[in-house]
Amino acid sequence: MPVTTTERGWKASVTRPVDWTAEVLPGLLDATPDQVPDLFGDLTVSPRRLVVVDSNVYRLYGHRILALLDRYEVVHSHPVVVAGGEASKNRATCDLITSGMEGFGVERFSEPVLVWGGGVLHDVAGFAASEYRRGVPYRMFATTLLASVDAGFALKVALSHGYKNRVGAYHPAEAMFTDPALFARDRSHIIEGAAEILKWALAAPDPAVFDYFERHGPDAVANGFAADDPHALAIIRTTIEGMMRELEANPYEAVSQRRSYIGHGMSPGLEPTVTHGQAVILDILLTLMIATGRAVISETLRDRIVRVIRATGLPLWHDVLEHGPGPIMRALDDTARHRHGLQSIPVMDGELGRITYMQDITAAELGAALYDLNRTATAI
Amino acid sequence: MPVTTTERGWKASVTRPVDWTAEVLPGLLDATPDQVPDLFGDLTVSPRRLVVVDSNVYRLYGHRILALLDRYEVVHSHPVVVAGGEASKNRATCDLITSGMEGFGVERFSEPVLVWGGGVLHDVAGFAASEYRRGVPYRMFATTLLASVDAGFALKVALSHGYKNRVGAYHPAEAMFTDPALFARDRSHIIEGAAEILKWALAAPDPAVFDYFERHGPDAVANGFAADDPHALAIIRTTIEGMMRELEANPYEAVSQRRSYIGHGMSPGLEPTVTHGQAVILDILLTLMIATGRAVISETLRDRIVRVIRATGLPLWHDVLEHGPGPIMRALDDTARHRHGLQSIPVMDGELGRITYMQDITAAELGAALYDLNRTATAI
Repeated sequence: MPVTTTERGWKASVTRPVDWTAEVLPGLLDATPDQVPDLFGDLTVSPRRLVVVDSNVYRLYGHRILALLDRYEVVHSHPVVVAGGEASKNRATCDLITSGMEGFGVERFSEPVLVWGGGVLHDVAGFAASEYRRGVPYRMFATTLLASVDAGFALKVALSHGYKNRVGAYHPAEAMFTDPALFARDRSHIIEGAAEILKWALAAPDPAVFDYFERHGPDAVANGFAADDPHALAIIRTTIEGMMRELEANPYEAVSQRRSYIGHGMSPGLEPTVTHGQAVILDILLTLMIATGRAVISETLRDRIVRVIRATGLPLWHDVLEHGPGPIMRALDDTARHRHGLQSIPVMDGELGRITYMQDITAAELGAALYDLNRTATAI
Repeated sequence: MPVTTTERGWKASVTRPVDWTAEVLPGLLDATPDQVPDLFGDLTVSPRRLVVVDSNVYRLYGHRILALLDRYEVVHSHPVVVAGGEASKNRATCDLITSGMEGFGVERFSEPVLVWGGGVLHDVAGFAASEYRRGVPYRMFATTLLASVDAGFALKVALSHGYKNRVGAYHPAEAMFTDPALFARDRSHIIEGAAEILKWALAAPDPAVFDYFERHGPDAVANGFAADDPHALAIIRTTIEGMMRELEANPYEAVSQRRSYIGHGMSPGLEPTVTHGQAVILDILLTLMIATGRAVISETLRDRIVRVIRATGLPLWHDVLEHGPGPIMRALDDTARHRHGLQSIPVMDGELGRITYMQDITAAELGAALYDLNRTATAI
């Protein structure tokens, strides 16, 4: 569209095309250029790649990652090794990665940074990539359940800067690859991913997504989303595909009523005392209590969901909730400044698959929900 | 476009629409809601605005800016007052502005930050706005010639981080307003703007743009682009309109051959020893010498342009050039990492209006150009 002349000046209009992919690739570390030619992007334009890798991943798989890079004849840096976890989601980690890009001399268009790790590393390295030279491409190799079903293919990148995710950008990895064989399998990591899977099971337009999770989720969580569990793999694939559609439909959050915000409107008020995944589950539980109080959903549906949360071993309560509604209300106020001034807390509209949005949740209502949750946590 | 299923996964494709305006508005500080209803965006959605202002602008015009905000019934913060100039183009200034946004509680969509100042403040405040909550809108009130003809309506925002503009984003002000009556008129500020005007005069597809500058530029520079000089105003308007078209045609620099890169491929090697504007002029002069050496342009055209530079009082030489080709070659290498590995230094293709791109400029060629420039600076 050409620049148009307005009454006193000019108006320019552009559109920026962005596309990105997500793939589940069992045997990722054994891939060959014949089988998966595009694993590291187009190496004929430039074979140079900067590698950024989580310190645990590097300890466990560093030699195999380096062998994989050699097999593809990638001309790579000494890897930038970074600690994962929320505590690393800050400017210092971002600057470390930026220094790595500067030292390596990353070209702006043709040398995607290769990021190996979990959700926090995605957000920080993706943010560093979004800033460097006004944006360089990167590729994500997701080594946690959370990254594979949520953060790893998100458009959002971010740092926590005073408040969770306070600064950020929209800059998805041009490609995400994940292999369940590489997942960190300790219970704390699995809970983080399971929380986002449950979120999508409740948000999905197709109620069969929740039905399937209800049937197979507890076992999948128990076995740590094992690579040889076909149900675990099916849950992962369903979540990725559903979330990709959700992101594509509203990539820049211009529409603040978003199904996948379930569990994410009040949870920042509980972090970092509890982890993100725990906070998401507690947010979901409080949302269910409030919705039941408003008769938006039935006690039957609420109890069905609570039972699934219990069966998967996800938390039903945490001491942080003893602080009462104050921190949660403050989080809700901040959330509203992200959503056109509205709380817009999504919840099932009577039945799974349909979503409505709650506004004007009050401290009194939250207090009642906390009371109900405390009772429910010990009762069902 | 719906998510598509690939061989092993999924692909999502989105486009992000961005539009923005630029207006020359004489009498800006006396504007009224009747005459210019959209000066601060839609105040009916939210009347709250954070104000970020250059310290010199605040000293000179603070009371009138505050009166203007009152006239529009803007609910504003105590302004965030920031020093201008290249030395402020850093993370510390960015963090100061971010803290201001956080303290004020800027809503994500409906409360554009109001930025009053020059090009550096545009770049830093625009970058802070691009990061905060993954991007909040801002409006630019350009108080320097440079900001009004170049930085103020650019998509690019940036910080210098080790190297000039090393981190940045694409996040144009949703609207730029400028009033020549507010320009900083000291010679150093005027030279900064005049350098970018000359750049566009040489880059413009229409050779009449240079003809006009040749005829009226020297007087405009001499009178500091006075608000009552119709030729100065015409030059400003022509430059804005031309650059808006240039930006719109290649907003994300995917095409690395860009007319308006004239003067910007080698100049980073001279900064910050000399100012950006001075560096751009010296880069242009070296480019002309190299192009003449390659017989891409005639000595006649080169000398015509050199005479205009001399007539406007722009620099023809600086001691920084005594350092020889080394720093300039290093800048060229870095520039190539911004342009698909190519130098792509634009220059007139024989005549004004046509552009060709020089590649593979060597240190020896630069040395010869430095020698020629030194001789020319004292000869014509």
